[in-house]
Amino acid sequence: MTETPHPLYVTHADTLARALTAITERGYWSAYPESPSPRVYGEHAAAEGEAAFRAYLGQDFPLDHAGSLARVATERSPYGVDLDVRYPRLDPDQLVVAARAAMPAWRDASAQTRAGVCLEILARLHAHSFELANAVQFTTGQAFVMAFQAGAAHAFDRALEAIAYAYAEMTRHPRTAGWEKPAGRGEPLRMTKTFHVVPRGVALVIGCNTFPTWNSYPGLFASLVTGNPVLVKPHPGAVLPLAITVRYAREVLAEAGFDPDLIQLAAEAPDDRLASVLATRPEVRIIDFTGSSEYGDWLEANARQASVYTEKAGVNTIIVDSTSDFAGMCRNIAFSLSLYSGQMCTTPQNLLVPAAGIETDQGHKSLDEVAAGIATAIGKLTGDPARAVEVIGAIVNDGVLARLTEAAKLGDPVLESREVTHPAHPDAVVRTPLLVTLDADADDVYGREWFGPIAFVIATGSTEQSVRIFRRTVGARGALTAGVYSTDEQVLTQVESAALDVGVHLSVNLTGGVFVNQSAAFSDFHASGANPAANAALTDGAYVAGRFRIVQSRRHT
Amino acid sequence: MTETPHPLYVTHADTLARALTAITERGYWSAYPESPSPRVYGEHAAAEGEAAFRAYLGQDFPLDHAGSLARVATERSPYGVDLDVRYPRLDPDQLVVAARAAMPAWRDASAQTRAGVCLEILARLHAHSFELANAVQFTTGQAFVMAFQAGAAHAFDRALEAIAYAYAEMTRHPRTAGWEKPAGRGEPLRMTKTFHVVPRGVALVIGCNTFPTWNSYPGLFASLVTGNPVLVKPHPGAVLPLAITVRYAREVLAEAGFDPDLIQLAAEAPDDRLASVLATRPEVRIIDFTGSSEYGDWLEANARQASVYTEKAGVNTIIVDSTSDFAGMCRNIAFSLSLYSGQMCTTPQNLLVPAAGIETDQGHKSLDEVAAGIATAIGKLTGDPARAVEVIGAIVNDGVLARLTEAAKLGDPVLESREVTHPAHPDAVVRTPLLVTLDADADDVYGREWFGPIAFVIATGSTEQSVRIFRRTVGARGALTAGVYSTDEQVLTQVESAALDVGVHLSVNLTGGVFVNQSAAFSDFHASGANPAANAALTDGAYVAGRFRIVQSRRHT
Repeated sequence: MTETPHPLYVTHADTLARALTAITERGYWSAYPESPSPRVYGEHAAAEGEAAFRAYLGQDFPLDHAGSLARVATERSPYGVDLDVRYPRLDPDQLVVAARAAMPAWRDASAQTRAGVCLEILARLHAHSFELANAVQFTTGQAFVMAFQAGAAHAFDRALEAIAYAYAEMTRHPRTAGWEKPAGRGEPLRMTKTFHVVPRGVALVIGCNTFPTWNSYPGLFASLVTGNPVLVKPHPGAVLPLAITVRYAREVLAEAGFDPDLIQLAAEAPDDRLASVLATRPEVRIIDFTGSSEYGDWLEANARQASVYTEKAGVNTIIVDSTSDFAGMCRNIAFSLSLYSGQMCTTPQNLLVPAAGIETDQGHKSLDEVAAGIATAIGKLTGDPARAVEVIGAIVNDGVLARLTEAAKLGDPVLESREVTHPAHPDAVVRTPLLVTLDADADDVYGREWFGPIAFVIATGSTEQSVRIFRRTVGARGALTAGVYSTDEQVLTQVESAALDVGVHLSVNLTGGVFVNQSAAFSDFHASGANPAANAALTDGAYVAGRFRIVQSRRHT
Repeated sequence: MTETPHPLYVTHADTLARALTAITERGYWSAYPESPSPRVYGEHAAAEGEAAFRAYLGQDFPLDHAGSLARVATERSPYGVDLDVRYPRLDPDQLVVAARAAMPAWRDASAQTRAGVCLEILARLHAHSFELANAVQFTTGQAFVMAFQAGAAHAFDRALEAIAYAYAEMTRHPRTAGWEKPAGRGEPLRMTKTFHVVPRGVALVIGCNTFPTWNSYPGLFASLVTGNPVLVKPHPGAVLPLAITVRYAREVLAEAGFDPDLIQLAAEAPDDRLASVLATRPEVRIIDFTGSSEYGDWLEANARQASVYTEKAGVNTIIVDSTSDFAGMCRNIAFSLSLYSGQMCTTPQNLLVPAAGIETDQGHKSLDEVAAGIATAIGKLTGDPARAVEVIGAIVNDGVLARLTEAAKLGDPVLESREVTHPAHPDAVVRTPLLVTLDADADDVYGREWFGPIAFVIATGSTEQSVRIFRRTVGARGALTAGVYSTDEQVLTQVESAALDVGVHLSVNLTGGVFVNQSAAFSDFHASGANPAANAALTDGAYVAGRFRIVQSRRHT
């Protein structure tokens, strides 16, 4: 039996094939150019994207649900721009019932067809990259280039990566197989077996405030391509990027002849607790969450009917033992701490440095000199307001601001946080990073996450003690990233062994253009699922395999 | 960098390669001959295996733990044979501590090495097939040939299948990858990335009374080959087959230079509640369980720190609509109901038959005639005691016996259960199947599992009602198997659609030598994970992918 492949599969077959190769090689590859240059995206793309973004402001967001809808507007831009986009506020029952009704035809479409449709959704979103980048920038506080890269291009790459893993998993078995068992001298037993991919049920994606697309897309597309209808519950502070995503996804689904309710926006009013309401519905069988450890742990404990994939918080740590490039190390760490004001789940927080100082290419450096070197490098990055805001962006919400105030009182400030006036957005809330020195025994402070532009230089007795602190804190609280600087292979081996024991990815001696808080799709795994900061990784087999089941039928041939 | 492959990997590389092919084809393949014939296993194998089994009876079971050990003996043979094998009763702390200590060297061995060692364990067990078959027979009540096939050969196939899936998953990514990102006109960014497979932690396997090896091996070997130390907690009624397994596995591990505590027997005294104690230990990160829905649900709810894989109970159902081979259908169903006295989690329980009867190759058959046809076929299989016991075996425990007594009072007995005297084992508890007719409204009875030689012919208003009952009961309680008999393709399509909706594997028009309660390794998936009877399938990607994590390190090249 041959089936005619769906036209959208044909359109995107080459991209899918290349992605399938990339996930087996884990080398460098990207499908969506990360440069927002007009040479890449065309002369008018930037202006058109910004205009499309502006057109949403102060309006009812266009989603094609039937009937009149209650509306909610919950966003406040870190740049001080009035957003006031009003989103439909659907009833949980309505969301779940519509999702389930949309499922059977999507289930019965082939893996090829679903992959083709999902890749077309990505292509449609890619065509709206600048619109999406503006939405990410003005809801999260990211600088524009970062919003374009992390919020659009890299998010599409991560989505494609998840689709590729899911497609590989769905197609690893044939759709039908012949089975012929020898039966001594008699006729063999002959059966034909059909293996159906069936979805788990309704999938729920719970977005975060800082990376609404990048962190949501892998789970969203992994669930959708495996046949599950998806409810997208955005963070109330960053709805627009996911609303735009849902809008274009519904458009593509409808054009391809499927029910657009396969993806629905679940916007909420304050105090709706919609995530918790949906997460505990029996129909909801898959949940993807990015956000606080507290709520992630709650989901894991309470959404028991569902497979729950969480990315939470941890204590990202760098062990500084020695370096052959002191200036490069300081610059690299400074950039990692400054980028998006440390508001990345991957930003380092704890810098473990021997109190006696370290050996470097510039001779021995005392702990104060190490701290000062990093502080000076941060100062250079953030000294000029116009350049600073392109790196540090704006502070996403009041929680971060309050934490920054609290942290300033903690210890010896190597570098104080400063207010910066944004040249283009005078109402933007912009702060430079804070660097505080702590003693090794202050683990009641550095032993937990301080999300935001807050980092600690921790004076340890020795690199051996640094490794012990690393094992203890990351073992207890988890981490998404870890780094080490050393010129001694024995130390590097010792730290790598500790990283395996506590299950955290390790970056070694980064002094150039790669940063510990960045992970490249198709090559770097983001989070490991092997420590308390996350129970899953983006993206590996474990992330996709449980999103569908195989149901077989068999009959004699 | 090239590494010398481990000699045990070299020995078994061909078998592994063939298994890796088999899991992508899902056609017929088997690595371990299922016939206990001397032509296959050698002239003395049967006698030697029986002697080895007998040598365990009344003795301390030989396991090489240090120190003097408390002992427990908890088995009672359904054949009335005195077993009295005394197993070490280890402290939970001791088990967990020893398991964790064994882990690092096993983790740091390659996937190839671990696969080679696991395949050598299977080879060692295979060499002791008759010993294992006797242990299975005399603890479970299975007839010998079944114990040899399901308890040894097929269990090895299922183990190999799980090893193959896990090996494929561990090796889908390279161990190291080069990454080179273009950087405009400058030098590209170049990194070398290393991807480590790290185990989740201590794995716990909780065995069942009826299929101690077949149901335990997939989880046991999937966890072990992915680097996790395994605690094997047997059912107190069927310890010996798993004790033998642990004995030879430890032998192979030690010979290969690994800590034998990578696999430990966790035998218990009555009231130890050892499964619950171990299952809630923070160090235990993977649990495989086969048994009651009640306890499986408890594990899923309470062993929250672990990935829990359960195979529980359901209401296996056959929809009878029409047939072109009435005699074949009756024989086939009769054998499925009789095999091992219905004490399989896959045995059909509910036969849904229209009250108005069905069309067959022998003309119209009333519901009573359908029931009588099946009853007569059971009678033929079980009429002669010597032949009967080779099919029905013995009753595994008093629980089944009590249920049989209760079921006999339920409705209209089409076929009463009879006591049979076992020609070779006069103390064996042997009963023939009971067949009871019920009305469609008696779903308080047939809507739950009656484990044992108990089946119901349920009179429905029509095949449409049969399908509705199938959807409702299997949707609510789950099922591991389903069957349908119909000459009408529309009915078959309708039932297949219902089977997809409730997530149960379907066998269509079985009238020959394939039975609904049997699944073939490498081809049939056992359980689906898509209904309440199980949360996982044997074996697919989802079953193995979560048993390890990938932890990476990266540095500039």
